[in-house]
Amino acid sequence: MSEQLRGPVAPPSQEAAAAAARERLDGLAKPLGALGQIEDLAAWLCAVQGECPPRPVDRVRAVIFAGDHGVTKSGVSAYPAEVTAAMVRAFLAQVAGVSVLARQHDVAVRVLDIAVDDELVGVPAEVTRYKVRRSSGAIHIEDALSVDEVTMALDYGAQIAAEELAAGADLLIGGDMGIGNTTPAACLIAASLGLSAAEVTGRGTGIDDAGLMHKRHIIEQALSRVGDRASDPVERLQALGSADMAAAVGFLIAAARAGVPVLLDGVISVAEAIIADAIAPGAAMWFAAGHRSPEPAQALALEKFGLTPILDLGLRLGEGSGAVAAVPIVRSAALVLRDMALLSDLVPSD
Amino acid sequence: MSEQLRGPVAPPSQEAAAAAARERLDGLAKPLGALGQIEDLAAWLCAVQGECPPRPVDRVRAVIFAGDHGVTKSGVSAYPAEVTAAMVRAFLAQVAGVSVLARQHDVAVRVLDIAVDDELVGVPAEVTRYKVRRSSGAIHIEDALSVDEVTMALDYGAQIAAEELAAGADLLIGGDMGIGNTTPAACLIAASLGLSAAEVTGRGTGIDDAGLMHKRHIIEQALSRVGDRASDPVERLQALGSADMAAAVGFLIAAARAGVPVLLDGVISVAEAIIADAIAPGAAMWFAAGHRSPEPAQALALEKFGLTPILDLGLRLGEGSGAVAAVPIVRSAALVLRDMALLSDLVPSD
Repeated sequence: MSEQLRGPVAPPSQEAAAAAARERLDGLAKPLGALGQIEDLAAWLCAVQGECPPRPVDRVRAVIFAGDHGVTKSGVSAYPAEVTAAMVRAFLAQVAGVSVLARQHDVAVRVLDIAVDDELVGVPAEVTRYKVRRSSGAIHIEDALSVDEVTMALDYGAQIAAEELAAGADLLIGGDMGIGNTTPAACLIAASLGLSAAEVTGRGTGIDDAGLMHKRHIIEQALSRVGDRASDPVERLQALGSADMAAAVGFLIAAARAGVPVLLDGVISVAEAIIADAIAPGAAMWFAAGHRSPEPAQALALEKFGLTPILDLGLRLGEGSGAVAAVPIVRSAALVLRDMALLSDLVPSD
Repeated sequence: MSEQLRGPVAPPSQEAAAAAARERLDGLAKPLGALGQIEDLAAWLCAVQGECPPRPVDRVRAVIFAGDHGVTKSGVSAYPAEVTAAMVRAFLAQVAGVSVLARQHDVAVRVLDIAVDDELVGVPAEVTRYKVRRSSGAIHIEDALSVDEVTMALDYGAQIAAEELAAGADLLIGGDMGIGNTTPAACLIAASLGLSAAEVTGRGTGIDDAGLMHKRHIIEQALSRVGDRASDPVERLQALGSADMAAAVGFLIAAARAGVPVLLDGVISVAEAIIADAIAPGAAMWFAAGHRSPEPAQALALEKFGLTPILDLGLRLGEGSGAVAAVPIVRSAALVLRDMALLSDLVPSD
């Protein structure tokens, strides 16, 4: 792995800009604290930008990391793996859920085939340019990736982030598409936080009770197969993750290291954030949480970071959709600090 | 009161359009139910519009009903009554919190002085055109309004709604501005649902523990002063409400009767909705809840309607701000039904 990914990330310049943000928020024409979580977001934006008031969050860019998962063959999802490739085409045709939300909110979306189990014939070359392999390993019986593959995927992710930043971004979003993806995500969170399969297993796309029992068993098998090897975050990603998730981890670390904030999506995104912060301690200071997923592992992971999601709408679509849906609130946070009057300008004190 | 306000409101054409919405939602390129509460909103939009897919929710109009409250002199708020008039000027200058959010989301905002305790010298005549009186009565010792005033305010509200609808509206929002307004709102909810002062009293703009005790006592006094007279909703409004709230009730009923959906704001708005639905049974079928307020009475009232708020960000600004902040999610609900592909188009079944 590129050495630039490992090691601590400098935190945002919190003291100065965030303190200025709090002072300005308290002076705005509203009761103290009346904008609730929007005020926390406003202070975070000032901290990550190092400016108060913050610049508007105009340029938001989302990357969807697509990949299949070997575990899908073992029946952990309500949908067949073929859906992953079909959804890549839907993103390109801009008719997927995230496409609709992104058009509404003027968010640029780029989909990349990192490990789709399909040749994706006819798809533009730039979509498959960062393909690491077809599908990732079935993690309950084998490692998701080889050592070389995890390195390649992490590096690809960093390159992808660099390209997005070069295009101009005030905020980045990483989304994931891949039938079966909540299984490796739950494994990564469990292995990172020392949780059991029972605590992290959720219904994903909507499996029934028998499916849930089976999925929990697969997760248990994966966790016990890997055992102590999971103590190193890169080895954890290699053994229990997937190529698309590894690329997203590289993307998150590179964004944090470049000082650009990221809005996390659901359970996949938060699992990636945990690994990113373990590889590059401090990276999580650059992240905010877009929405609360019904997947139990996501709440447990967000708690570790002390992050409160913006939206709680029961979304479980993935694709970065929950983060994209939360973009207007992040933008509001910048705008209230920029454009609201101060109470002292309206009601001069005597 | 104009007879057209009293009596049942026809419900939205739920059976046909909402059933079509559910069928279409289940067919979209996503796991079943994966858009969570956005799907519920989508079905509601189809029901209230009587069309599936629904028309886009482009034209959103918010009216801020401004008024002072006699109880403010008894120290139920952290802010002095003078702030109400100052905020009316801030809305006109478009520098208030709701102004910033409304500009972001392309929502038209109109502020009306219904009962501000100020002559508002220099303010355009159309702002004060529906003024019922200066301030409303101190409800712990006297009725908020006379019989004639409550009738006038309700009629004004219906006229205001008619004007907004004539301007073209896919969705209406009623906001409130008035220092002290959570006290009458809590009284109306308590009297409507048979709750105690202890259950409905909240911190409003941010009063301390002593202030909270005092406010609860004021609410208790108001509820016991009015007693059984509160069983009729119009009398409840006259005795425990205020002119701005009565106008908003008329606005809500007229919107529902015209078949135009309304996005409710915080505790004031939900208190008005309870009265509106009591005067015109069925009106609440035309309402959705924009956000969850930290005021305890709001949650209790929403429960009665079975409404789940879209946002839960700890907002307690009023002015319609919580509803305006939720507008992008309502728009998303219409857009996913209009623009997302069907799964069957992407993955032909064999």
